Amino acid sequence: MNYQAPLRDMQFVLYELLQGDQILPALPGYEDATREIMDAMLNEGAKLAENVMAPLNESGDREGCQYDPDSKTVTTPSGFKEAYRQFAENGWTALSSPVEYGGQGLPHTLNTLAEEMVCSANLSLGMYPGLTHGAINALTSYGSDEQKEAYLPKLISGEWTGTMCLTEPHCGTDLGLIRTKAEPNTDGSYAISGTKIWITGGEHDLVDNIVHLVLAKLPDAPSGSKGISLFLVPKILQDGSRNPAFCGGLEHKMGIKGSATCVMNFEQAQGWLIGEPHKGLQAMFVMMNSARLMVGLQGLGVAEAAYQTSLQFAKERRQSRSLAGPQEPDQAADNILVHPDVRRMVLRQKATIEGSRALAYFTAMQLDIAHKAESVEEREQADDMVQLLTPVVKAYLTDEGFFCANDGLQLMGGNGYTQDWPVEQLVRDARITRIYEGTNGIQALDLVGRKLGMHGGRAIKRLFAMLDQYIQQNADAPHVAAVKASAAQLQKATMWLMQNGMQDREQAGAVATPYLRLMALIMLAYFWSRMAATAQQALNDGSTETDFYQAKLFSADFFFAKLLPQTHSLMADIESGKDSLMSMTAEMM
Amino acid sequence: MNYQAPLRDMQFVLYELLQGDQILPALPGYEDATREIMDAMLNEGAKLAENVMAPLNESGDREGCQYDPDSKTVTTPSGFKEAYRQFAENGWTALSSPVEYGGQGLPHTLNTLAEEMVCSANLSLGMYPGLTHGAINALTSYGSDEQKEAYLPKLISGEWTGTMCLTEPHCGTDLGLIRTKAEPNTDGSYAISGTKIWITGGEHDLVDNIVHLVLAKLPDAPSGSKGISLFLVPKILQDGSRNPAFCGGLEHKMGIKGSATCVMNFEQAQGWLIGEPHKGLQAMFVMMNSARLMVGLQGLGVAEAAYQTSLQFAKERRQSRSLAGPQEPDQAADNILVHPDVRRMVLRQKATIEGSRALAYFTAMQLDIAHKAESVEEREQADDMVQLLTPVVKAYLTDEGFFCANDGLQLMGGNGYTQDWPVEQLVRDARITRIYEGTNGIQALDLVGRKLGMHGGRAIKRLFAMLDQYIQQNADAPHVAAVKASAAQLQKATMWLMQNGMQDREQAGAVATPYLRLMALIMLAYFWSRMAATAQQALNDGSTETDFYQAKLFSADFFFAKLLPQTHSLMADIESGKDSLMSMTAEMM
Repeated sequence: MNYQAPLRDMQFVLYELLQGDQILPALPGYEDATREIMDAMLNEGAKLAENVMAPLNESGDREGCQYDPDSKTVTTPSGFKEAYRQFAENGWTALSSPVEYGGQGLPHTLNTLAEEMVCSANLSLGMYPGLTHGAINALTSYGSDEQKEAYLPKLISGEWTGTMCLTEPHCGTDLGLIRTKAEPNTDGSYAISGTKIWITGGEHDLVDNIVHLVLAKLPDAPSGSKGISLFLVPKILQDGSRNPAFCGGLEHKMGIKGSATCVMNFEQAQGWLIGEPHKGLQAMFVMMNSARLMVGLQGLGVAEAAYQTSLQFAKERRQSRSLAGPQEPDQAADNILVHPDVRRMVLRQKATIEGSRALAYFTAMQLDIAHKAESVEEREQADDMVQLLTPVVKAYLTDEGFFCANDGLQLMGGNGYTQDWPVEQLVRDARITRIYEGTNGIQALDLVGRKLGMHGGRAIKRLFAMLDQYIQQNADAPHVAAVKASAAQLQKATMWLMQNGMQDREQAGAVATPYLRLMALIMLAYFWSRMAATAQQALNDGSTETDFYQAKLFSADFFFAKLLPQTHSLMADIESGKDSLMSMTAEMM
Repeated sequence: MNYQAPLRDMQFVLYELLQGDQILPALPGYEDATREIMDAMLNEGAKLAENVMAPLNESGDREGCQYDPDSKTVTTPSGFKEAYRQFAENGWTALSSPVEYGGQGLPHTLNTLAEEMVCSANLSLGMYPGLTHGAINALTSYGSDEQKEAYLPKLISGEWTGTMCLTEPHCGTDLGLIRTKAEPNTDGSYAISGTKIWITGGEHDLVDNIVHLVLAKLPDAPSGSKGISLFLVPKILQDGSRNPAFCGGLEHKMGIKGSATCVMNFEQAQGWLIGEPHKGLQAMFVMMNSARLMVGLQGLGVAEAAYQTSLQFAKERRQSRSLAGPQEPDQAADNILVHPDVRRMVLRQKATIEGSRALAYFTAMQLDIAHKAESVEEREQADDMVQLLTPVVKAYLTDEGFFCANDGLQLMGGNGYTQDWPVEQLVRDARITRIYEGTNGIQALDLVGRKLGMHGGRAIKRLFAMLDQYIQQNADAPHVAAVKASAAQLQKATMWLMQNGMQDREQAGAVATPYLRLMALIMLAYFWSRMAATAQQALNDGSTETDFYQAKLFSADFFFAKLLPQTHSLMADIESGKDSLMSMTAEMM
């Protein structure tokens, strides 16, 4: 795959739109995150993604991971081990991890940009260090000092990788149902027994040791989700012996075939409690929240890769004549980009990707502010945004990532459907992102059921305040009237939810998915207006990058003309509530 | 795959909604198509699809077709040959073909219902006889008597199969660019030379002979699409010798892996002109039009298969509790069908599939009326409907078939993504239907660029007359006000097209895709209102099938509450026209 990191657009969003080069180095602890440092990192990351990871994407899909039932080991596709080693040695696993355990202590935002490139280049390969992040975050927040010292340095350096072991064969979403047991040993450790499925990187040959974070129930556990505890279960124990945490097989999946998705059998494996007994769900949410943002980035990354591939194809392909008459009369046919319907697919990808990029990077920067800002108020405000927008980023960017990959396939016609081109793989790879780390339906329930109501609706009020402030202070910005009108729709939908969803939670559940989508579109409208204003300013200031900035203005026009109007259907869907969903009995289906 | 033909719903649409048991046997030549005969055929077809074809669907995907470069032959997956033989021997290839050449002369409508079942059960296997149909239709319309006698009986009996050889490596949509040559031999035949790609069933082991219908250019051909002629090129010549029309390889595709998609090399192969020189495009449209309806049915068939699989999964899966409180307190969790967002996915599949079925069968019946009705007016009226609705059926049913398959995958969560379940294959298989026989973008251009304007807009006027008549005569029918409002939207969009698209064809091209979708939704609204009225009448008449008819009423409610409102966004998209699509230069993308 011929991927080129979209550095110019990444820089536009990070610096010109979001002022990351001013805001980030002003945060205590992030003083090093100057524009020079960030640019240097991004350039290095781009090279690694383009030259080391992308070339292994197709071969990784064709080869897949291999399981040997005798040794219970997993072999990753050729080249993955070396590429992972380069990734770790160049410091990418350590980028935003704490300095005291060997991390570089750079902003999470920078890691987000790196993630996007990795996910564009090779989603399967990116999963191994990606999941390790969740383990690092949970250990950092809840591990004992002893645990941190024993495990964090090697996880951060990439010498070891980590997993999150949640799902069991009979339960995915509803973790209260898990059956994996943790029985106390005499030495303070626990014997963990049970089967976990869908364990990314549960077993592989990239590194020597794998640190499993496992949800299990203590003997005295209350039933349901309040009885779950989190355990640390290393593959290799500190004395060098093999812990009986074995891979029982690999899932055969539609895509991400280079990522080892394991069934893991814990056969009285030795584990240590992380945090308090029965409080595992909290720690799990720490892992999940950063993972959810990451999965949103996966959607964005795959969409970008599909966009680049299909656009390159479109620029070379000639079929038929322009409806306005021949544009290149000396050629046998015009280039397909003369056709409005082809442009519709190209621009839908472009406007969605660039708008999503702004939303994702904004959320990542809020995460950095939430961690590092000096004042409590700033931290709280930023954390509210992160809480509110995390499910939106996860669900919208993965749904749209899949649709963009499909747009890319569609505009390549039959070519897109063959394995001669990378797009059909991107479609298959992207498909899982709408499901794992909580299906997109669960994200929507998280938004309307938990995030809207948090602290008396504080987060959503702050979101509206941000939109209002923008609208009032930028009355002349491009498309600001449309932002205002669509923000009013979101306000109306939120009111509807308050009035109906509070008394009747099924009403909230019934409209969760269109409500999340509505919020995503309004956020994109806000950012597209801001991006157009930024671009217009640059042109007014005499920038010589006229194509780049003019494209932003045109993409904004496309977004407001062709994509934002989805809000009208979403409003009708929301306002019709639950009735048409709940009347039918299962027997009638 | 555990497929069960939805016979009850098929009968509801064919008999109760469309009165096919009265209309079809009243057509001259279709006297045998009584309800008894049709029911018997449908029952037989269901058994074949369920017991013979469906069991080979997964193995066909895993095994795929194998190409041997030495012998240039293709081996189909295990069991395909025997299943195809049974299909042919039971008369399914001959169902709607002319009696004088060994066909059964039954209505095309019946064939359409059979197609749906075949496509649900095994899309790849169904492709071989499906493509033969196109060849039969073209030969029937344009072949000489000699050609008909030599080839039709064996194509109709299924002893031989047929292909359509159109696409070349450098051109898909724009057939004016083809390079395959036809040079006259001294005996009245032609020597055909060139390479064709994407040839379904170009080479395989199901039968002994394959009849290729090949587009090529005569030496004196005018340039462009007015210089294309159609040739008949059998694999085995009448003297038993092998014609040099060889398979050069197979495409490696995302799905339909059991269908042999061949590169075909014609190396001075002997061929015979079908119809007049340079008039091949006309004959090709005969092949294409029936093929386009068939591809729409493929979308519907795959959607039904995904719906059945995911619904069966949903009925067994338990996760979390109802938002209205525990529904099955003695179980560890409630069934997932208590969750409104799960129901949203199930009902979107159900309402889309059943509405699409009505639209597809209606169009098929119009085709029978267009062929067989006694009066010219009736034939013309019906043909207008077929012309207008063929691109709508093709594009909408395949887009939605893919979305429904994805809904099925989504509601199964991680399970849906694994190859342990058939849905991920259905998603991969469905993906091609949006592309072949003219991409869905091309269907939309066909609708707005050719079909709307035919005979001064006669077809669309007739469609509006049909809608108006229904609205006026059924003022009390369920949802008729919504039908009226949405028909007014379609009228407004059509006016917009007349005013803008006539002078500026790029305006028509820019709104073609949302306009097609708008028309599809309005047709589904019309049929959902009619289906609800039919179901209400049955309940009023004291039918004991209360679940079946009540479900129709609830599905209609869902359609009007949750799906029809898409028209609002489509209207905004249409009315914003081409400006936001055409401004950007290729360099800016």
